[in-house]
Amino acid sequence: MNAAIFALPGNETLAAALADRLQLEPGAMTLRSFPDGETYLRFDTPVSGRPVLLVCSLHDPDRKALGLLFAAATARELGATAVGLVAPYLGYMRQDHRFRDGEAITSAIFAQLLSRHIDWLVTSDPHLHRWKSLDEIYAVPSTVVPAAPLLAAWIRRHVDSPVLIGPDAESEQWVSAVAHIAGAPHVILQKVRRGDRDVIVRNSDPQLLRNRTPVLVDDIISTASTMIAAIQQLSVHGLRPPVCLGVHAVFAGDAHAELLAAGAAQIVTTNTIPHASNGIDINDAIANAVAAFLSEKS
Amino acid sequence: MNAAIFALPGNETLAAALADRLQLEPGAMTLRSFPDGETYLRFDTPVSGRPVLLVCSLHDPDRKALGLLFAAATARELGATAVGLVAPYLGYMRQDHRFRDGEAITSAIFAQLLSRHIDWLVTSDPHLHRWKSLDEIYAVPSTVVPAAPLLAAWIRRHVDSPVLIGPDAESEQWVSAVAHIAGAPHVILQKVRRGDRDVIVRNSDPQLLRNRTPVLVDDIISTASTMIAAIQQLSVHGLRPPVCLGVHAVFAGDAHAELLAAGAAQIVTTNTIPHASNGIDINDAIANAVAAFLSEKS
Repeated sequence: MNAAIFALPGNETLAAALADRLQLEPGAMTLRSFPDGETYLRFDTPVSGRPVLLVCSLHDPDRKALGLLFAAATARELGATAVGLVAPYLGYMRQDHRFRDGEAITSAIFAQLLSRHIDWLVTSDPHLHRWKSLDEIYAVPSTVVPAAPLLAAWIRRHVDSPVLIGPDAESEQWVSAVAHIAGAPHVILQKVRRGDRDVIVRNSDPQLLRNRTPVLVDDIISTASTMIAAIQQLSVHGLRPPVCLGVHAVFAGDAHAELLAAGAAQIVTTNTIPHASNGIDINDAIANAVAAFLSEKS
Repeated sequence: MNAAIFALPGNETLAAALADRLQLEPGAMTLRSFPDGETYLRFDTPVSGRPVLLVCSLHDPDRKALGLLFAAATARELGATAVGLVAPYLGYMRQDHRFRDGEAITSAIFAQLLSRHIDWLVTSDPHLHRWKSLDEIYAVPSTVVPAAPLLAAWIRRHVDSPVLIGPDAESEQWVSAVAHIAGAPHVILQKVRRGDRDVIVRNSDPQLLRNRTPVLVDDIISTASTMIAAIQQLSVHGLRPPVCLGVHAVFAGDAHAELLAAGAAQIVTTNTIPHASNGIDINDAIANAVAAFLSEKS
């Protein structure tokens, strides 16, 4: 029996694209809240005896976790042959270390919770910093779809004489990969974080940046405070307004407007999280990764 | 090492009461949201080598589940000898059957999620309808603190010539227990539910109710639509405005104001969920149940 694909709320576009490209049955699911705040979930399309794909990008994960776990557990109970999760953005990757005694390493706990209820996972560029691979915390096989080739292609098509700029050391892995593929130079700024939203950056060599179009690149744009601090530094050195590229358009609160106001010439993201800034379509690459899991199972 | 007790947000009063009565160390915990909506959690008081109690009443459980699971998992990771959960109101008890194909039986899935991360559970009057015992779905030992003796004592102290009224068949177990202890007669109305908030009730024998003070009793007051429908029926038969007693003050949205507007003479609940209507203190009974678990472990 062919696979059925179900969108958790807000993921309808990607689910429809995957259904279309991979010839999956578009599944209908009801997910709503009772008046007391508890979740009601129903698979309106039968799931017994077939692979089930759940599509749920995991930004704002606290609002989604229980519904997703209910869906995965119920699909198994009802006899799905496998439950795959397509989460283009994977939340809870940043708390990867006990920075102070007593802290929860939520990345690992969240991974264990999900791993118990799914059979495989497809995501794009999870924020791997101290964890070197999802396999360190996820007990199920996963495929990571890299956004770097897509970002590099976008830069080549849209930016003359780019220089890629990583706003902090954690961004180096993304920036160097994109720069390598795009055939462009890159520099990494130094960040000093003083709080969730209070960040300054430093760069020792602004000469590298002159006469080129600065392209700030990061994996996650959340509060945008890191990129905003980078823009301020570039501005001090008299550089052009930068293009800001992000893989994941988290944009907490008014972060998108604040990043524009801070002087971003343009803000472009992939569609791992649906957002007005999405300008780079990653769905084909995700479809390929999903197809590989489905063909293993059949 | 003596046990430490930690309040999840909103449960500080009960945690302090238990710490005081049982000579536990009041623990400090930081639980906050990052700007992107993810939860940060830290035990500020050490938990290693001692029993840990988490206090978290589970109304509005979708907002709380992940933080609670993070806390329980982290306490274990950090070497707590046992993790007990005190949840005076236990959410997700009502979806106890697949009423339609494809539905999630969330009571069982939620119970499995919690059971993996805790060692014991104390709650008060969980909504056991099709499940006859928490042991059917919870894999850990639990103690259920009955509210009936407290409701009965309140009625004897405050109501002359009461007749207890159960607004629907599901309420019969609570109402008959309270009536028996209070030494009062009781009747059960018949409910026809047409939607989450659309309920009518019927009663074949209004004569039983005359010349007595009607006391509506239920375990959970959520939308209050069941009690409101009951009040309307009592009013049609010319009975006095009833006293409304509930164990758990869920009160979704404006339900409390609507129940008053519908003609409740008084609304009184226990403090399993902190609410302005709390008039019956269940904390001593909960402390006794907790003490029993702690003495087993020591």
